[in-house]
Amino acid sequence: MTKEKQQNIQAITNMEEDFARWYTDVIMKTELADYSPVKGFMVIRPYGFAIWENIKNEYDKLFKQTGHENMYFPLLIPESLLVREAEHVEGFAPEVAWVTHGGGAELAERLCIRPTSETIICSMYSKWLQTWRQLPFLYNQWCSVVRWEKTTRPFLRTSEFLWQEGHTLHETEAEAQAETMQMLNIYRSVAEEYMAIPMVVGQKSEKEKFAGAHATYTMEALMHDGQALQSGTSHNLGQHFTKAFDIMYTDRDGKRSYPYHTSWGLSTRLIGAIIMVHGDNSGLVLPPKIAPIQIVIVPIAQHKEGVLDKAYELKNILKEYKVKVDDADGYSPGWKFSQWEMKGVPLRIEIGPKDIEADKCVFVRRDTKEKIDISLDDIQSAVAKTLEDIQNNLYKRALDMREQKTSTAVNIEEMKAKLKENPGFIKAMWCNDRHCEDTIKEQTGASIRCIPFEQEIIGEGKCICCGSPADKMVYLARAY
Amino acid sequence: MTKEKQQNIQAITNMEEDFARWYTDVIMKTELADYSPVKGFMVIRPYGFAIWENIKNEYDKLFKQTGHENMYFPLLIPESLLVREAEHVEGFAPEVAWVTHGGGAELAERLCIRPTSETIICSMYSKWLQTWRQLPFLYNQWCSVVRWEKTTRPFLRTSEFLWQEGHTLHETEAEAQAETMQMLNIYRSVAEEYMAIPMVVGQKSEKEKFAGAHATYTMEALMHDGQALQSGTSHNLGQHFTKAFDIMYTDRDGKRSYPYHTSWGLSTRLIGAIIMVHGDNSGLVLPPKIAPIQIVIVPIAQHKEGVLDKAYELKNILKEYKVKVDDADGYSPGWKFSQWEMKGVPLRIEIGPKDIEADKCVFVRRDTKEKIDISLDDIQSAVAKTLEDIQNNLYKRALDMREQKTSTAVNIEEMKAKLKENPGFIKAMWCNDRHCEDTIKEQTGASIRCIPFEQEIIGEGKCICCGSPADKMVYLARAY
Repeated sequence: MTKEKQQNIQAITNMEEDFARWYTDVIMKTELADYSPVKGFMVIRPYGFAIWENIKNEYDKLFKQTGHENMYFPLLIPESLLVREAEHVEGFAPEVAWVTHGGGAELAERLCIRPTSETIICSMYSKWLQTWRQLPFLYNQWCSVVRWEKTTRPFLRTSEFLWQEGHTLHETEAEAQAETMQMLNIYRSVAEEYMAIPMVVGQKSEKEKFAGAHATYTMEALMHDGQALQSGTSHNLGQHFTKAFDIMYTDRDGKRSYPYHTSWGLSTRLIGAIIMVHGDNSGLVLPPKIAPIQIVIVPIAQHKEGVLDKAYELKNILKEYKVKVDDADGYSPGWKFSQWEMKGVPLRIEIGPKDIEADKCVFVRRDTKEKIDISLDDIQSAVAKTLEDIQNNLYKRALDMREQKTSTAVNIEEMKAKLKENPGFIKAMWCNDRHCEDTIKEQTGASIRCIPFEQEIIGEGKCICCGSPADKMVYLARAY
Repeated sequence: MTKEKQQNIQAITNMEEDFARWYTDVIMKTELADYSPVKGFMVIRPYGFAIWENIKNEYDKLFKQTGHENMYFPLLIPESLLVREAEHVEGFAPEVAWVTHGGGAELAERLCIRPTSETIICSMYSKWLQTWRQLPFLYNQWCSVVRWEKTTRPFLRTSEFLWQEGHTLHETEAEAQAETMQMLNIYRSVAEEYMAIPMVVGQKSEKEKFAGAHATYTMEALMHDGQALQSGTSHNLGQHFTKAFDIMYTDRDGKRSYPYHTSWGLSTRLIGAIIMVHGDNSGLVLPPKIAPIQIVIVPIAQHKEGVLDKAYELKNILKEYKVKVDDADGYSPGWKFSQWEMKGVPLRIEIGPKDIEADKCVFVRRDTKEKIDISLDDIQSAVAKTLEDIQNNLYKRALDMREQKTSTAVNIEEMKAKLKENPGFIKAMWCNDRHCEDTIKEQTGASIRCIPFEQEIIGEGKCICCGSPADKMVYLARAY
């Protein structure tokens, strides 16, 4: 290893030493994001934003394929609207930002910056919906929301974040439930197939559900440090908001009815998941399907005749991929290697005079750091295969990691011991009682992440806390 | 004309009677946008948002092709940052919204919702920029901004609007000027080629330039009622902000230097331009390249055997276009015709049992309302040609309209008379004096829209106001 390479890598804290610092180092050094002059607010830099654009495009395509259309609602919500659904205001009022002055004057009613848009959207839906012929309403918006946070961390918890929020209305409860599940499945499929992050999917407990929801469903991922990250939620809102906002329509029988309602959201938080699931001590590791740069070509001895030409020729052959030729002057190949490794580019191609003579190039995989000589004649099929292998390997590696970090426990003492020796998910039985849920949290720091759809019986089927018969298996973990 | 068709069209006010009401009627009836519970803020509905997505995609593609990358900066700007550039704060402070409370507590410093992001972006650029090797900085963001407005109108002037703002840094003044011009050209090319709106391009007067700019360039369009609409601006900011924000770098000679700076923005206002340039008394008229639905297929006698099958077969043949088959039950073809006419769909295809028998269908162009029988064998080439004709015709029609509404004047009396008999652009000479500019505005209500790049001499080359020799020809108009 060259000296400069060592220096570069040393600049990132070892994740085993200090995971939180490793995380922040990766974000800052790879220029995904930066702190801003406003406390708790971050700047998403081009490399981070390009990942978000890729995530957004994949989801947006699937939203549209399933009949959803995008809209845009106002940033500001009058206080009188925010307070109309009781549970909702209780959940969100403490963390909103208030606008009190505009255009040089104090406002008659203060306005909050949207923490989520159920209330303002419902106020419009009540105006627009007249008859069952208009249903379902299948709408979504991509926007930023503000939730005032005391302690913040880039991508994971910031006072402002980018997200999408879907808001739908349906004639029947069954249709709303089907929509809630459909969107959760779309969330999971892109997370697994594009971001290579295996998800546990299931239902939130009453305590953990969205403020105002009938039921909340979630996908939960496990990070390298054994903490869980809630990565997307889909809510069956029943008629809570449609009643609070007088959304009524003439149904097929000519009666006035309230529609059933869903909402679902995911955010730039997913970028935090990508970092903490795939990253290593050299920096980011990006799945090829979501990487802003899939392949970096580093010319060796680039001033020798024909080298740069060959590098650009390869770029042109590979033009269906996102390829960068790093022909920067004044930096050694070794320095470039470690830079692009840090930035998580899935595949590096090295090409120099000796390679050209031998009609070959060198592939270096970011996930395994394996070096392979590739004949230039085979380059297209080799790239396709290698990127696919990397994508699959990252998913498999993440799944192995999660399985290795998932334990079972039948009582709280065992749970504490397991969390200590192998932090991660604990699968355990729960009696569905809020008091037990609170006790577990107090004693272990772990919360119920979800009641997974795939149930099993742990031990003798008794609640991990109170020991009474329990019919629910839950995933527990400390969480971001 | 059927009775129901008449009713539908009557629902839109005649533009010759009341242009402002015609405009609002079109927006509300076609469901482009709606008023919201927050005064001055609008909701952009799916049909309007889909137009914005099409506009955005075209521009974003060209921004990226010219090397720009997207980022995201915080929504909120501390007051201490907003006030750092003197002209800028004077221009924007009166119209910002202030956040004074967050997370249940009063903030130590109030934060404004961005009216534009020069200040917060410059504060970050000063941190990021170290050496000339990093230049140019070519960044853009798509977001919403808030400018508190007293009188608002959907798309044209609302307290919140969606836009993009590019912010670039360069080593030399010449590069910054070239960037400013390049972006203005991109603005113009999409406006003309996709939105079919001819633009007058030129420089703003000192009075009308952006607060804090060295020079502002603009594209201006003329609406059906003879008023101008500023449709996109590109600013050469010189070193005003880079000095105020201490953005310095080590230049090629090893000296500490301030970079040169540009910014450029366009917004959802362009949707207002599309409505007011192309629309007619039946409603919207959308250019094919920007229409969310390019072709609507309306089956006639749709319950007769084979009709719906044929309609969907045509849709499938035309799958490279955005096609909708309107197979809604319970609505007559006549009702559907007028609905889609109102919504501005460029091409309607009617197909019924008699057409199928004759192996043909009927094309109805939205721009000319012309009906043409088309053999089903020729449908693909006929669609391609018809959409291209519509696109070209809309541009030509808009250009003819603008030319018809452009007059010259050599003194203010003549200008008043011309504006009265034929409201629109006035081309006139101006001595470059602010006092004359103000006088013209006071006496005619028209402002200097720009000093166009294509100059000519009007009359004897004397200022329209003071009569002294004038070397600038300007476009004047009443404006939105």
